[in-house]
Amino acid sequence: MDKSTRYKIFSDPVHGFISVPKGLILQLLDHPYVQRLRRIRQLGLGYMVFPGAEHSRFSHALGALGLMDRVLQNLKEKNTTISAAEYEATLAAILLHDIGHGPFSHTLEHNLIRDFNHEMMTKALMERLNVHFDGKLERAISIFTHNYPKKFLSQLVSSQLDIDRIDYLKRDSIMTGVSEGGIGIDRLLKTMRVFNNTIVLQKKGIYALENYIMARRLMYMQVYLHKTVLSADQLLRAIFSRVRTMFNDKKPPDFCTPALRFFLEQNLSAANGLTPEITEQYVRLDDADVITSIKNWRYDKDPVLCDLSRRFLDRDLGRTTYLPAEPDPQLQAKLKKETSRWLEKQGIPANEETISYFLHFGSSYTEAYKYQKDSIFIVDERKQPVEFSVAADAKHILALTEPVVKHYVVHPKELNLRL
Amino acid sequence: MDKSTRYKIFSDPVHGFISVPKGLILQLLDHPYVQRLRRIRQLGLGYMVFPGAEHSRFSHALGALGLMDRVLQNLKEKNTTISAAEYEATLAAILLHDIGHGPFSHTLEHNLIRDFNHEMMTKALMERLNVHFDGKLERAISIFTHNYPKKFLSQLVSSQLDIDRIDYLKRDSIMTGVSEGGIGIDRLLKTMRVFNNTIVLQKKGIYALENYIMARRLMYMQVYLHKTVLSADQLLRAIFSRVRTMFNDKKPPDFCTPALRFFLEQNLSAANGLTPEITEQYVRLDDADVITSIKNWRYDKDPVLCDLSRRFLDRDLGRTTYLPAEPDPQLQAKLKKETSRWLEKQGIPANEETISYFLHFGSSYTEAYKYQKDSIFIVDERKQPVEFSVAADAKHILALTEPVVKHYVVHPKELNLRL
Amino acid sequence: MDKSTRYKIFSDPVHGFISVPKGLILQLLDHPYVQRLRRIRQLGLGYMVFPGAEHSRFSHALGALGLMDRVLQNLKEKNTTISAAEYEATLAAILLHDIGHGPFSHTLEHNLIRDFNHEMMTKALMERLNVHFDGKLERAISIFTHNYPKKFLSQLVSSQLDIDRIDYLKRDSIMTGVSEGGIGIDRLLKTMRVFNNTIVLQKKGIYALENYIMARRLMYMQVYLHKTVLSADQLLRAIFSRVRTMFNDKKPPDFCTPALRFFLEQNLSAANGLTPEITEQYVRLDDADVITSIKNWRYDKDPVLCDLSRRFLDRDLGRTTYLPAEPDPQLQAKLKKETSRWLEKQGIPANEETISYFLHFGSSYTEAYKYQKDSIFIVDERKQPVEFSVAADAKHILALTEPVVKHYVVHPKELNLRL
Amino acid sequence: MDKSTRYKIFSDPVHGFISVPKGLILQLLDHPYVQRLRRIRQLGLGYMVFPGAEHSRFSHALGALGLMDRVLQNLKEKNTTISAAEYEATLAAILLHDIGHGPFSHTLEHNLIRDFNHEMMTKALMERLNVHFDGKLERAISIFTHNYPKKFLSQLVSSQLDIDRIDYLKRDSIMTGVSEGGIGIDRLLKTMRVFNNTIVLQKKGIYALENYIMARRLMYMQVYLHKTVLSADQLLRAIFSRVRTMFNDKKPPDFCTPALRFFLEQNLSAANGLTPEITEQYVRLDDADVITSIKNWRYDKDPVLCDLSRRFLDRDLGRTTYLPAEPDPQLQAKLKKETSRWLEKQGIPANEETISYFLHFGSSYTEAYKYQKDSIFIVDERKQPVEFSVAADAKHILALTEPVVKHYVVHPKELNLRL
Repeated sequence: MDKSTRYKIFSDPVHGFISVPKGLILQLLDHPYVQRLRRIRQLGLGYMVFPGAEHSRFSHALGALGLMDRVLQNLKEKNTTISAAEYEATLAAILLHDIGHGPFSHTLEHNLIRDFNHEMMTKALMERLNVHFDGKLERAISIFTHNYPKKFLSQLVSSQLDIDRIDYLKRDSIMTGVSEGGIGIDRLLKTMRVFNNTIVLQKKGIYALENYIMARRLMYMQVYLHKTVLSADQLLRAIFSRVRTMFNDKKPPDFCTPALRFFLEQNLSAANGLTPEITEQYVRLDDADVITSIKNWRYDKDPVLCDLSRRFLDRDLGRTTYLPAEPDPQLQAKLKKETSRWLEKQGIPANEETISYFLHFGSSYTEAYKYQKDSIFIVDERKQPVEFSVAADAKHILALTEPVVKHYVVHPKELNLRL
Repeated sequence: MDKSTRYKIFSDPVHGFISVPKGLILQLLDHPYVQRLRRIRQLGLGYMVFPGAEHSRFSHALGALGLMDRVLQNLKEKNTTISAAEYEATLAAILLHDIGHGPFSHTLEHNLIRDFNHEMMTKALMERLNVHFDGKLERAISIFTHNYPKKFLSQLVSSQLDIDRIDYLKRDSIMTGVSEGGIGIDRLLKTMRVFNNTIVLQKKGIYALENYIMARRLMYMQVYLHKTVLSADQLLRAIFSRVRTMFNDKKPPDFCTPALRFFLEQNLSAANGLTPEITEQYVRLDDADVITSIKNWRYDKDPVLCDLSRRFLDRDLGRTTYLPAEPDPQLQAKLKKETSRWLEKQGIPANEETISYFLHFGSSYTEAYKYQKDSIFIVDERKQPVEFSVAADAKHILALTEPVVKHYVVHPKELNLRL
Repeated sequence: MDKSTRYKIFSDPVHGFISVPKGLILQLLDHPYVQRLRRIRQLGLGYMVFPGAEHSRFSHALGALGLMDRVLQNLKEKNTTISAAEYEATLAAILLHDIGHGPFSHTLEHNLIRDFNHEMMTKALMERLNVHFDGKLERAISIFTHNYPKKFLSQLVSSQLDIDRIDYLKRDSIMTGVSEGGIGIDRLLKTMRVFNNTIVLQKKGIYALENYIMARRLMYMQVYLHKTVLSADQLLRAIFSRVRTMFNDKKPPDFCTPALRFFLEQNLSAANGLTPEITEQYVRLDDADVITSIKNWRYDKDPVLCDLSRRFLDRDLGRTTYLPAEPDPQLQAKLKKETSRWLEKQGIPANEETISYFLHFGSSYTEAYKYQKDSIFIVDERKQPVEFSVAADAKHILALTEPVVKHYVVHPKELNLRL
Repeated sequence: MDKSTRYKIFSDPVHGFISVPKGLILQLLDHPYVQRLRRIRQLGLGYMVFPGAEHSRFSHALGALGLMDRVLQNLKEKNTTISAAEYEATLAAILLHDIGHGPFSHTLEHNLIRDFNHEMMTKALMERLNVHFDGKLERAISIFTHNYPKKFLSQLVSSQLDIDRIDYLKRDSIMTGVSEGGIGIDRLLKTMRVFNNTIVLQKKGIYALENYIMARRLMYMQVYLHKTVLSADQLLRAIFSRVRTMFNDKKPPDFCTPALRFFLEQNLSAANGLTPEITEQYVRLDDADVITSIKNWRYDKDPVLCDLSRRFLDRDLGRTTYLPAEPDPQLQAKLKKETSRWLEKQGIPANEETISYFLHFGSSYTEAYKYQKDSIFIVDERKQPVEFSVAADAKHILALTEPVVKHYVVHPKELNLRL
């Protein structure tokens, strides 16, 4: 058969043409679980600051699939043994690696189900798909969960230098217009190889790696932890806290989409397991539920929900101010008092709960390069692998292993806190 | 005052940094009417074929604003008199030129209000904004409606060579990954000038113009009228026809978002005017209403609505087949009969209405360059303006003025029509 | 052996990484005949108008090699039988396709050897290489000269839709900054296939083809036949005419590089064959000989050579004026008279010869698409191949088959000719 | 007058359109001193490793001119007072900042004139231009030499964050295809401002600055100090050492271009001043002299010159091996002995001089960020300027201030040195 007819070709703004093999991989791509990712934005509320950041998790999954195909091809050319079944399973694992994400995932996931994270759901959904596809995802699940003997395949899916990050850094950099996040994908993919069952980088890729580490740091600083993004996240969390309180108090809002209602009416905990009913309802949820609900909550009878929703829709976001250190209880008390006074002037009852919607203490944490848990190794043609910060010819790499912690407070702009 | 503080800077994946003047323009950008465009995709269902086409009408409006700023600056440098008020009004006009669009506009606008088009709504909303901003949009409306004496300002907003098209061609080309739609924006903007109160192009821009005309033709052929996009459009229209029938029959679906219900419960006609109530409900509508509703209609008791919604969400789209000519009544009757038989096998009652959801006859029409109604003129330094197809040194431009009409039929893939 | 070690990787500004197979192809790339192309600019004097057009014929040869590798890979995936030997031979043919070019080739080739063109020299050099490489280029020569049974391989090297043009259009467009020349390489390469021993394009590539045809037309109009490029070409030709006259008159200039002297001292004609001595001297020639000689001719005792050389080096180029038709003898005589008078004022003896250096009548000829000699065919999955202008859905393609002829005159700016 | 006619527009592959003001600036651009830069490659021998690195110093000068225009415009919008005369002078200074470069400048400048560097020549040529342009370059020279009161204008021309570097990093990154060198030009230019008469960066540009510092480091590591580039440099220096020895011994090579001969016949020292005769001969020199001469030296009677020239032209470059530390005299002696033995086998007389052509000990030195001599300052809206490594929120910046020194040895590949 003509090999060209064995692929369906997609056009991607970041990587150009992407060939998706017909058969299992294309069936997975077309499956509602994956198609649903078209309705979930990759950067959540990032578009509120970077208008172009409107791309979905689907675009990212497709892009990562295309890159995985390239890197596996490269590794095979370097005589790494990868069977056809392993090849397909690794493609499946990367394609599905994010299907457990819900709408505005990093912001909302704890508001929907307690003690939950999206990786749990990804695994639960992969298992349901495995049943649906008659066990054909066995190996993909094993790779995804790092239980497969060929450890390097799992590392390509998730590690400190994985295909997931390579795609999202490049994609997010282009879509946000933050060129500082640009990375040299070709060089990274070309210089990866397998050594002792792990992914290592050839020496000639060391500067591409340094650039990748820096780009990730800069994207965190400029985009993912942008002050206004932090503030929008906080507002969305406040809205959902309020709604949950209302549901708990048996005074639910007038409108709520059915899929969202399922999670807000109950107090689900992941500790009790992700039942088929839960996963089934979960995959009905996407950004549209959140947006549609907030649009209607703007006209809700509850003044607090109404106010918060209006702020969200009109992009009337709070101000984020960095603090030199973690705020001590005294400072916190003082600021709460100021917020309380301001709330009352607005006609909003001031209490511990409402104050928490408008005044938020947070901290961001970034680690450019973790060298203890999940090191990246460099190999020279003759030599043993050397850990990256040792192999690099400059001390700044070691300095990058120190985490950067920043404390901040988010508050309404109208409230001129004395900080 | 420091001029740099008079602008807010946005980062755009297509044009890089865009400076938005504080004051009226930034206030308009932040207004809910414009912010709502973030929730309406520029290419409607185009993302179903081109996964990267997830950009919103907001991105386009912002991009067009940035380009308008550049072209007005260029024209001023060529000694065209444009007052500060006119400058601002033209920026306002381009920023607002699409606010009347509803969700999946080209597909759905007739399903919401009879005899309606989005330009009417744009005008109605601009007038409401004018009231809100104390008459400050008077001049912008006049420019938008081609009633302003300086005709060239209106042409920049809408004509055969306008800033709207220049932005969307470039943006859609990049986001879809269809490089054939690439155009030379710099050259077009640099060579525009005003002559006899109209926008003309300097001779040295003639090849950039030829490229622009061709790029537009190729984007129509490859993207806007892509067979699968036509088919997805048809499916969405079918869904809304079915829902409207259900509302008319007083058997509405179980779920419907409030904003959508407003339009489906009534049989509004634009001929009766766009009342404040109508415009108010209209601006509550966006893609999220449509998506949320269809997601719930998938589980509706009505089997036809349920089936159509499932097809939409699972991307189980019909096949589009081009016909050599407009299908004659005999052929149409034959195909309807085949469809009718197929429907009954599916357990769907076959009648004129249901057949129309699954079998659709359509035709697409494109005119690469209209030289009679809205010619583009070229000027040499010394000479009079010459119409583009005359000024160009090749006969193919004239050939491009002939419209291209293509007839097609959309039908479910399972139904192997004998065409 | 590790396949990755079988390639040497080059980094290219246009196509990114290019993998060159070690063995014959890398040996050819490293051979002095090919390395010499680094010293010959791809666009000759184009850099005088487009400052970025400084790329060499070597970059183009390398880029074309990379694209050929991709298209051959694609064709093999479509089940076209291409043996390893044929694969290598086609790579060799495209790599070597331009080695016969001399410095400023299109401008100077007739000034070095009468009745000569660079294809002759390419063939002669390929034959010398074949001897050097023990007959290993037999098949490559056969493909290059269109004598190989698999005609489609020759078409990839030279035809109306060949890898040569695809690389140079893209490269020249990027380097000149003329975005109108941009083409969709991926789509063209992906949709090529072999049918009846010829290269055809699949239907879904038809708009990429239309764009390619248009881009080529626009590059001719904007770059290759740019008025100032025509004028610079004419000046360089005048310089060499003058030098040849001086050599013929046994009054050669004081300085001349040895390789150039070889060709100027003799009156070689290609009709007498390209002897080993001729080819040997020819490969010693490159842009540096021309530039070094003209730099020294600027100080030559011959006032005409000195004047022309100064104009060249200081970029004091003549003006090109388009004429509505071919100038009749009367007009020509009149302009010659004006030029003659102007020359005498400059202290330059005016005669038929000197006038020809300063006043030049020329015409440019472009054919966007030749549909008679060398048609491009489109195939649908089921159908027979259809010639492109018939397959296309618009009449402008047919119009593009008509050649565009433009007549012009080049003259010094100081000479205000009454045209 | 129409402002658009006051500019000549150039098209650049890196920055798009560049507007050059007519008058002094365009006259300078057209002057032979600047036009000569078209014949000197920006990266010297870099093209031997990165085939696309064929761009000239002219392209860089033009690009830097365009960026300077943008940054001066931005500064004016931030209320920095820059008079029209200062504006023009700063443009002139950046346009001319490299005119003193000779062919393969960093490699050869010491071989042409002792105790010389290109900055001296730039200054000498600017002074000659100043005479030619009736003193109109007075202010530009003052800015170039850091003697102008508005210190910030000089900093834009040369400092650790200057327009020169911003252009060349971006340009070299694109042309070499080394994407790791990409920088965010727009953000850097937009966030520059003047504070206390110096250029500082606004806080929101701090990550763009971090990226710029890293990009520079990575370009040094990957391109400017690439092992093969170091080796090619060494070979070119060896050729010129040999030729100079031959001239000193009164046995000059058979061929030498006149401009080169001028410098090789004499033993000029910059200490004796750059006389008009020297500068006049210097501006006749460019890459073409070097290339033409080496091409003829390949056939010279001197076997050493002949061998070295052949290696250069055939790209038969030595191998560069990094050493763990500076080689001690013992190791040096051992390697020289091995080289000596190898040379004699080649039939080349082995002595201190010839050994030095084939065996070279060198060291490279890079400092990513110098924080003592030439700090970069960051300002917050309210605060005092803070030095970059202090303002940055991570320790790796401080680590970047430590220089990286690497020792290496270059030797012919055939000579398997035991290192």
